Amino acid sequence: MAKDAYQKTLRSLQIELVKLQRHMIENDYKILVLLEGRDAAGKDGTIKRIVEHLSPRETRVVALGKPSDRERSTWYFQRYVPHLPAADEFVLFNRSWYNRAGVERVMGFCTDAEYEEFMATVLDFERMLVGSGVRLIKYYLDISKAEQKERLAERRKDPLKQWKVSLIDAVALKKWKAYSKARDEMLKRTHNPLTPWTIVCSNDKKAARLNLIRDLLSRLPYDGKQPRLLKADPKIVFPYSESCLRDGKIAP
Amino acid sequence: MAKDAYQKTLRSLQIELVKLQRHMIENDYKILVLLEGRDAAGKDGTIKRIVEHLSPRETRVVALGKPSDRERSTWYFQRYVPHLPAADEFVLFNRSWYNRAGVERVMGFCTDAEYEEFMATVLDFERMLVGSGVRLIKYYLDISKAEQKERLAERRKDPLKQWKVSLIDAVALKKWKAYSKARDEMLKRTHNPLTPWTIVCSNDKKAARLNLIRDLLSRLPYDGKQPRLLKADPKIVFPYSESCLRDGKIAP
Amino acid sequence: MAKDAYQKTLRSLQIELVKLQRHMIENDYKILVLLEGRDAAGKDGTIKRIVEHLSPRETRVVALGKPSDRERSTWYFQRYVPHLPAADEFVLFNRSWYNRAGVERVMGFCTDAEYEEFMATVLDFERMLVGSGVRLIKYYLDISKAEQKERLAERRKDPLKQWKVSLIDAVALKKWKAYSKARDEMLKRTHNPLTPWTIVCSNDKKAARLNLIRDLLSRLPYDGKQPRLLKADPKIVFPYSESCLRDGKIAP
Amino acid sequence: MAKDAYQKTLRSLQIELVKLQRHMIENDYKILVLLEGRDAAGKDGTIKRIVEHLSPRETRVVALGKPSDRERSTWYFQRYVPHLPAADEFVLFNRSWYNRAGVERVMGFCTDAEYEEFMATVLDFERMLVGSGVRLIKYYLDISKAEQKERLAERRKDPLKQWKVSLIDAVALKKWKAYSKARDEMLKRTHNPLTPWTIVCSNDKKAARLNLIRDLLSRLPYDGKQPRLLKADPKIVFPYSESCLRDGKIAP
Repeated sequence: MAKDAYQKTLRSLQIELVKLQRHMIENDYKILVLLEGRDAAGKDGTIKRIVEHLSPRETRVVALGKPSDRERSTWYFQRYVPHLPAADEFVLFNRSWYNRAGVERVMGFCTDAEYEEFMATVLDFERMLVGSGVRLIKYYLDISKAEQKERLAERRKDPLKQWKVSLIDAVALKKWKAYSKARDEMLKRTHNPLTPWTIVCSNDKKAARLNLIRDLLSRLPYDGKQPRLLKADPKIVFPYSESCLRDGKIAP
Repeated sequence: MAKDAYQKTLRSLQIELVKLQRHMIENDYKILVLLEGRDAAGKDGTIKRIVEHLSPRETRVVALGKPSDRERSTWYFQRYVPHLPAADEFVLFNRSWYNRAGVERVMGFCTDAEYEEFMATVLDFERMLVGSGVRLIKYYLDISKAEQKERLAERRKDPLKQWKVSLIDAVALKKWKAYSKARDEMLKRTHNPLTPWTIVCSNDKKAARLNLIRDLLSRLPYDGKQPRLLKADPKIVFPYSESCLRDGKIAP
Repeated sequence: MAKDAYQKTLRSLQIELVKLQRHMIENDYKILVLLEGRDAAGKDGTIKRIVEHLSPRETRVVALGKPSDRERSTWYFQRYVPHLPAADEFVLFNRSWYNRAGVERVMGFCTDAEYEEFMATVLDFERMLVGSGVRLIKYYLDISKAEQKERLAERRKDPLKQWKVSLIDAVALKKWKAYSKARDEMLKRTHNPLTPWTIVCSNDKKAARLNLIRDLLSRLPYDGKQPRLLKADPKIVFPYSESCLRDGKIAP
Repeated sequence: MAKDAYQKTLRSLQIELVKLQRHMIENDYKILVLLEGRDAAGKDGTIKRIVEHLSPRETRVVALGKPSDRERSTWYFQRYVPHLPAADEFVLFNRSWYNRAGVERVMGFCTDAEYEEFMATVLDFERMLVGSGVRLIKYYLDISKAEQKERLAERRKDPLKQWKVSLIDAVALKKWKAYSKARDEMLKRTHNPLTPWTIVCSNDKKAARLNLIRDLLSRLPYDGKQPRLLKADPKIVFPYSESCLRDGKIAP
């Protein structure tokens, strides 16, 4: 996609996001967007474009560090709860409680029992949030192994991105299969009618960003909506279904 | 009960509580005790005796004020969650999330829909806490109308207790029946095998305190336990069952 | 002092404290009381009697644990600041920022430079609080070596107080002289007209409690004050002056 | 300045910022940068460029909303203190405690006594922070009346910036002179050798951003510094002195 066309499209979608925010604030919405995906899948970059022109006071990006000892001893969801949106707030989680089903599962940071307890309760938890009026939207950004490899290599070379290089990245590729397995199990067991997963094929960064924003906007009501701007490409953004794991729509 | 005997018994139970706390800290227990009951049922006094000789650093009494505007717009349980116990912590809630099924219900501080949402989710919430290792124990302190009347009258006269007299108290007696009805519905719908309600007949303050502490200690394992001290009087402390509402074991 | 007389006097002073609190809340006072003193000097017990009948919502006792790593890297006063009183609040610090001039100094938990920085800035800090309307009152509870020895021995035997026995206590007696020296330097350098130190001779627990409360009440205006109840014994409670260090009014 | 040259220069400075951050984290620096200036002076845009490629976990932008009732009753600096940097943290305040000397002063949100108390204590407060190891750097972004007028007009037209338009903006122009007077008094009374003010002439946005970043980098030691990149234009960034108020270097 040409840079100019991308910039122009992005700008028009950001104007829609500003309209959405105004509508949200007038109507006391609470919005919570979760972005999951492997390392280098494009979560940071997508979030940056979403929030770029939104009101900082009503928008929050939450990327929790690793839990303290005290936090590790509490109810798993406890450290996420203070960051949930109140009225008028648009909150984006850059990685979320699904960490337990991804990084923690693969790296052995939680026990099998903790993992099973998480899987057994996460949908109850989400159901309560939805019941309290939170509009909860879950995206999984999916990339191929080749694309991840290239992005991680670039990152190591780019003087502006070197801080992103962590020890966990180093094993992202090595543990590719374990991450795929953990992802598949997470999607299978936590996709549900109330809080479904939406997959975003992210091998093309720009297309992924634009289509995720289109999808997000199309799910929420707001005044002055321009539906013709919001037609997402169904090859880029689509609802999860088990067939995706077989037909190659999700990276094997 | 004679004052001396009471003091002596209380002291021996408080020694057991100190043993429990040492055991808790060595074994990373998380204990959460909820005390519910009408105004003047004896919650404050009971809690004071429980915590009197416990280590302040690992013991917390939580009595939340009324929610701020921002809090009212969030998930109902959100403001309680930061106060849940971490490892080694013994937390007592002086009134709890069941406020929604009691004061809020009777005084009209919540909508019917909020009440039903609470009732529909509270056991899921408690199940998650128990699943995360919290030992959750729920007491309902029950008093008769005559006893409440007398205590509220005393309170108004006692120069040390006048700050306790609030506008809500003023209607406690007037709304006696509405409170009974709300209590009955709460007990019926939220008593369950995992987080059952224990009733404490509190017309006799001293007996209520001693027996509640006995019951609490008997439910928890700890080294050096003196079981003979922990025999609670089954007329004072007993598990809730629907028959209690009919046979007068709970004040009509 | 006979137990009955003590109980009666304490009760009459607690009624005065309730009057003070009512007055405070009506007039938006902010009160901050610091209690310092060696281990077993009676800080816990005194605070317990002060707050016993006060409204829990407007009264806070603050006893900070040891700082986390993150806290150790911040401005020294930072972790105390969130606990300062807002309007209507009566806050008691059980040990305070003067920890740096006492335990930390003696036990080597801070560097000489950190100690000097503290000494050089603490009065500026207190001046700012007073300037913002906080009524700041500082008590030093003083006991003799023989009394401390006896209390620590009792504590080890009393099954209700064993949790109080810590590793730091163990050296309290051994380091008696170092603590005396640290205390003397603290008093000399931080006694000043705006936030003076008041010494409470605490060898007699009951007398210390009653006289400290009398002194506290006499310093603050409130409606319905009974001045005849508030005459503190000048041998028990008295303003610090350098002569105290020489004439034996403070334990050598 | 041509867009390409700007982008290239900005990128090279952002690489320096990444080096600074790595050095900071290795050496446990605490950095606090305050940005003050009239509405539309370019604070948001400058901060965005500084943090764009920094590690989100160690970088924080703080833009406090208006104080709650409880906060208004506390020590003025209290609500800023929790946001001060710990070791390894780079914190930017978008408006700071100097609000009291600017917006609050002009709009009448504080009393004269509160203003004078602030002026009398702010340097003591800053001295304590510096004494605790915080590297505190204060910038005042200055624009002309014509430039402010144009930017506010643009903002009202730009669909991406309309949320920025607030009631306070509406009076920014009307109260131009009052704001000038408040600024002059603030600079005169709070410029000092330990925490001096640096003025940034911000009529040219791009030049202001680049030169502020150059100045910031030149003040801090870090490995691999490229001094030739850091030569700030002394017509754009310069230390405050009283003569600036007379010779037109600061907008009248």
